[in-house]
Amino acid sequence: MITGGPAIVLVEPQLGENIGMVARAMANFGLSDLRLVAPRDGWPNEKAIAAASRADHVIAAAQVFDTVEQSIADLNYVAATTARPRYSTKPVIGPDVASGKMRERMEAQHGCGILFGRERFGLSNEEVDLADEIVTFPVNPAFASLNIAQAVLLMSYEWMKSGTLFEGRPRFYAPVINTAGKEDLFRLFDHLESALDETGYFFPPEKRDVMVHNLRNMLTRASFSDTEVRALRGVIRAFEKRSGKDE
Amino acid sequence: MITGGPAIVLVEPQLGENIGMVARAMANFGLSDLRLVAPRDGWPNEKAIAAASRADHVIAAAQVFDTVEQSIADLNYVAATTARPRYSTKPVIGPDVASGKMRERMEAQHGCGILFGRERFGLSNEEVDLADEIVTFPVNPAFASLNIAQAVLLMSYEWMKSGTLFEGRPRFYAPVINTAGKEDLFRLFDHLESALDETGYFFPPEKRDVMVHNLRNMLTRASFSDTEVRALRGVIRAFEKRSGKDE
Repeated sequence: MITGGPAIVLVEPQLGENIGMVARAMANFGLSDLRLVAPRDGWPNEKAIAAASRADHVIAAAQVFDTVEQSIADLNYVAATTARPRYSTKPVIGPDVASGKMRERMEAQHGCGILFGRERFGLSNEEVDLADEIVTFPVNPAFASLNIAQAVLLMSYEWMKSGTLFEGRPRFYAPVINTAGKEDLFRLFDHLESALDETGYFFPPEKRDVMVHNLRNMLTRASFSDTEVRALRGVIRAFEKRSGKDE
Repeated sequence: MITGGPAIVLVEPQLGENIGMVARAMANFGLSDLRLVAPRDGWPNEKAIAAASRADHVIAAAQVFDTVEQSIADLNYVAATTARPRYSTKPVIGPDVASGKMRERMEAQHGCGILFGRERFGLSNEEVDLADEIVTFPVNPAFASLNIAQAVLLMSYEWMKSGTLFEGRPRFYAPVINTAGKEDLFRLFDHLESALDETGYFFPPEKRDVMVHNLRNMLTRASFSDTEVRALRGVIRAFEKRSGKDE
């Protein structure tokens, strides 16, 4: 039995049947780390277990979280799947390219995961903001109706394929940057934003949301290492100290 | 609306829901030639129409045949999908290789099709014998439970990917970031470093060079846009103002 692979994160899934079908799709292609953010009908879910058929090991190991942030806190690289264009500067890649990238990172012991949105309206812009890159599928523009289990199936299939293709890879790579864990990145956001609140940077107040969005986006895109995140925290502390907050 | 592509031939499909899901999977990836060999519940089938959702054009154009031979009589190349090894000397290929071959043949006006077997036991050996090649999917050997709609989905996805128009390219791209000119970036360095000098961040002094090196490195790697560089200058100014430099 093949297990492992990137985490599949379902954000507020509604139907237990879909969760079960996702578990089966994962098991078919050797994935086993299923994470659920606030599933509508609670957990465990009888319908999910029934639809998972024999993918019990995936269902039994599924983890439940209250927020997307918590669900990816231990990961280093996160992709967000979306069907429609987002006005974001994040790189947009296909599931095959994403699988190759995650394969490299996971060999370097970096945690990877992929966010899948709600059945009805996918991921919010704020949730997409949390990801490093955007994954979308090359579908017929006039008929793009992949459901969540189908999207997970295609992603998992490409993951499996990337393993068999990996044999032809180059003999060495540039070292993988030891990208900071998302939890550390989220702490950096909080620290910077509260420090800036003190300075009056967010003005006028109704612009705060979009200013925060832009700051978080640029800090996410940089894929800072944990050392670099620590250095930036130090920079903020230095400014805070200078401004007398700690005195 | 993209149409065309190889024929999808379902041999003695049992559940109308599966036929409908197959039609949707085809429509998602621009396929439209659905052929049914002796569907158990007859044709048309209300459950198939319901499950097809908006893929009406595929359902409406579906053709029904009594035998596999009749269903592929007008084709030049036929692949048979099977989950288990067959004692046959036919080449065994993946859905990606099969798609590339069919793409070439169809450009030369050769009819192509893919056989999918019954829900319970797939294709008979005699039916596999009718095909030119065998297609199988790279699944987890310990958990290979693709249903017919999932198998058609993966095959259709690879068909779309093989297209010259697509070649695995995503449907949309992130806009190219208007990366800041180096001059603006260097001004950002100077601004940040002089602001940090005021705070005493660079301590002990002999470490200043390596600390500056690290900061510049991380700010360069992020490829900030000119808007983002301006936002960061604003952040630094906010901290400076707070610390009373401008008073």
